[in-house]
Amino acid sequence: MATETALDKVISLAKRRGFVFQSGEIYGGSRSAWDYGPLGTELKENIKAEWWQTFVRGRGDMVGLDSAIILPSAVWEASGHVATFTDPLVECLQCHKRHREDHLIEAFEDKHGRTPADMSEVPCPDCGTKGKFTEPRAFSGLVKSYLGVLDDASGLHYLRPETAQGIFVNFNNVVTTARKKPPFGIGQIGKAFRNEITPGNFIFRTREFEQMEIEFFTHPEDAGQWFDHWVEACYSWFTDLGLNPDNLRKFDVPEEERAHYSAGTIDLEYRFGFQGSEWGELMGIANRTDYDLGSHTKASGAKLQYFDQGTGERYTPYVIEPSFGLTRSMMAFLVDSYTEDEAPNTKGGVDVRTVLKLHPKLAPIKAAVLPLSKKSELAEPSQKLAAELRKHWNVDYDDAGAIGRRYRRQDEIGTPFCITVDFDTLEDQAVTIRDRDEMTQERVSLDQVTSYLATRLI
Amino acid sequence: MATETALDKVISLAKRRGFVFQSGEIYGGSRSAWDYGPLGTELKENIKAEWWQTFVRGRGDMVGLDSAIILPSAVWEASGHVATFTDPLVECLQCHKRHREDHLIEAFEDKHGRTPADMSEVPCPDCGTKGKFTEPRAFSGLVKSYLGVLDDASGLHYLRPETAQGIFVNFNNVVTTARKKPPFGIGQIGKAFRNEITPGNFIFRTREFEQMEIEFFTHPEDAGQWFDHWVEACYSWFTDLGLNPDNLRKFDVPEEERAHYSAGTIDLEYRFGFQGSEWGELMGIANRTDYDLGSHTKASGAKLQYFDQGTGERYTPYVIEPSFGLTRSMMAFLVDSYTEDEAPNTKGGVDVRTVLKLHPKLAPIKAAVLPLSKKSELAEPSQKLAAELRKHWNVDYDDAGAIGRRYRRQDEIGTPFCITVDFDTLEDQAVTIRDRDEMTQERVSLDQVTSYLATRLI
Repeated sequence: MATETALDKVISLAKRRGFVFQSGEIYGGSRSAWDYGPLGTELKENIKAEWWQTFVRGRGDMVGLDSAIILPSAVWEASGHVATFTDPLVECLQCHKRHREDHLIEAFEDKHGRTPADMSEVPCPDCGTKGKFTEPRAFSGLVKSYLGVLDDASGLHYLRPETAQGIFVNFNNVVTTARKKPPFGIGQIGKAFRNEITPGNFIFRTREFEQMEIEFFTHPEDAGQWFDHWVEACYSWFTDLGLNPDNLRKFDVPEEERAHYSAGTIDLEYRFGFQGSEWGELMGIANRTDYDLGSHTKASGAKLQYFDQGTGERYTPYVIEPSFGLTRSMMAFLVDSYTEDEAPNTKGGVDVRTVLKLHPKLAPIKAAVLPLSKKSELAEPSQKLAAELRKHWNVDYDDAGAIGRRYRRQDEIGTPFCITVDFDTLEDQAVTIRDRDEMTQERVSLDQVTSYLATRLI
Repeated sequence: MATETALDKVISLAKRRGFVFQSGEIYGGSRSAWDYGPLGTELKENIKAEWWQTFVRGRGDMVGLDSAIILPSAVWEASGHVATFTDPLVECLQCHKRHREDHLIEAFEDKHGRTPADMSEVPCPDCGTKGKFTEPRAFSGLVKSYLGVLDDASGLHYLRPETAQGIFVNFNNVVTTARKKPPFGIGQIGKAFRNEITPGNFIFRTREFEQMEIEFFTHPEDAGQWFDHWVEACYSWFTDLGLNPDNLRKFDVPEEERAHYSAGTIDLEYRFGFQGSEWGELMGIANRTDYDLGSHTKASGAKLQYFDQGTGERYTPYVIEPSFGLTRSMMAFLVDSYTEDEAPNTKGGVDVRTVLKLHPKLAPIKAAVLPLSKKSELAEPSQKLAAELRKHWNVDYDDAGAIGRRYRRQDEIGTPFCITVDFDTLEDQAVTIRDRDEMTQERVSLDQVTSYLATRLI
């Protein structure tokens, strides 16, 4: 359903039901970032938990790390970010709005199916004037920040544009304290900041965002096979969590488009259905070679190398980096799970039923307890059941409105199970559990509800 | 064991075993922040997961939120932070080092048991010169940052000094989309930044840190009883997770020391065993009244109020705010769980045994698989067992060195269970599981290990 229309509907649903809010909305909002509401926060947490379990806790060759957002500037000088982490910025001479030159060219290509001869053919997206742009200048994507009590240059710090460097500079610390040897990797989830010239496409391109990154260290000779391993592992992670393979593709990034440190990059792209270009980058797997450990060794004097006691060889490991966009992953799971079908209504007709067919592990709410009436005789056992289930899962309680409408409310946020407490419950001590996807209903004894859900929420 | 010595030992252990690293260490390090190594990251994640389960998912009257670190500046103007979030900064005229005047006075009081008559009695902690300070000036604790492509004041953004404001400005969004009515609360975990004049005491006072905050909205008449509720709920959370009540106290903050918005504050203080002042603030519970919703209503024009359809009353809810320091909580759990006892060694004598008696829910590693020999006949079933257990928990595998030394390594990082695979395992398909605290050993069938751990890791 990842058509252009589906994307619009998902964005509208995400705002209406509290997955995502415009940041600072009551003050006119910010283009730089988004706030995640109750449902979005749970969905995002579930994605993080699945990622951490699959790639860090679940593997014997991985450990986790959580490094600071603000590292000493020397880190970003050594990594090359201060010198080269730039985008080409042009300004329209007519309206003085600023744009990324490469994005203007891409938009032209998407529209006309060819590359523009030069910028004179390219219009300003704001005022429409053609070809009146300044020469491009290198605009730094690093976000500057000031720390400390001295009024001099020592206060300048950059907010990290990627979590990766915090891993590289701790390579020796981890090898020593966690007693790890290559092949092994370090995973990290956290915020990163880039001074994007043109944030846009909902939560796809923002100045504040979250990454889930792995730096996997191997002997240089084994880098190729680990690269292949990680491409498959990442691809499977998305499809195991329900992403439709038809909407996920591998893009082998040609050499001239790769980052300078990369000997090979495969991007996983998802069919978001953006206007113009349908596909968007979800993550990338790069072979960063020994570029990073080598650069930091040179700049810091610390030997970020590994000495193999078995073979007597000292070497700088190669790094395979699977780098996931967390908020992009969340957007992909939302778009991919959005469906519309028909459900019978009480008037003998059919209603359009919007369902987020999220994997049960990702669903923000696992079950909703719905007493058929607000009367205390039903409210009491319903609340008791909800309290019991909350020991294990995020559970909703909804006693407002017709039962059909309450089902629809849960369907469109992806709740796998709706549990109805009715007047028979007082007799048979059982409830009706409805499955989101199958629409089947089963009568389950009250004391069996927890185990019923436990076997199905996996 | 929270004596001064214990604190030093904990800091040393935390660095040696990879709980906490100095941030940017290979470049001389930063005083502003710390990096969390593999064990520290797991411990921190476990604290967050317990907090989220107890206070957000586990309660019917709470929902979660995740707002941006960089909000529009208008938020911080309305909240009063731009005008009043300052510390008194003085500079020593002799050595030109800068300090917080209130900290200098507190240090004097701790040492002499009395308040200094004036600053002329107070020495500079750097050079020792007495009373040669500039007049105090209000130094902003806000960290400045620059975003966007325009070279003007519109680029100035502050990094949030607390997560709370992101909750207040979303009050209406949450009420509408999550269909909540007071009394209810919103919880959030995330990074915050303060330009501390003097960071210090390990991870206690840093410029980059993490908070776990709740803003609980109530009818003004009920604010008092909810304040009491939250003080007890917070206190119990720490003691339920094993913190010794002897090391935890409530401090009723006198009016003159309270934040301007607070009608009542109780701090929970932990006996960290700092030099000078033993106790340190772990968290605070404040009655923020209608100050925040009122300020944002005034500044933004959005009515951050609640209309009670039952009573027909429209009112601005009062806010009870339990605000936890995450990294401070982690430090308290580490200090509190640090113990030394004696264990018999193989030579017939006793060794000092360092044990982190962390609650099993918090322990970074839940179980360690220890094959008695590196031989493949033991390695194979051991690795199979470890892989099976990793589906559920963070599990270590250690086959290096004498078994006694491997036990000690696990004890000092708080691993609740050590599982030894020996040559008998090949015969009886069973392993020996050793309890960290009781030091008892039990023979458990291989196919029972998962359920054995599952019933004990709660």
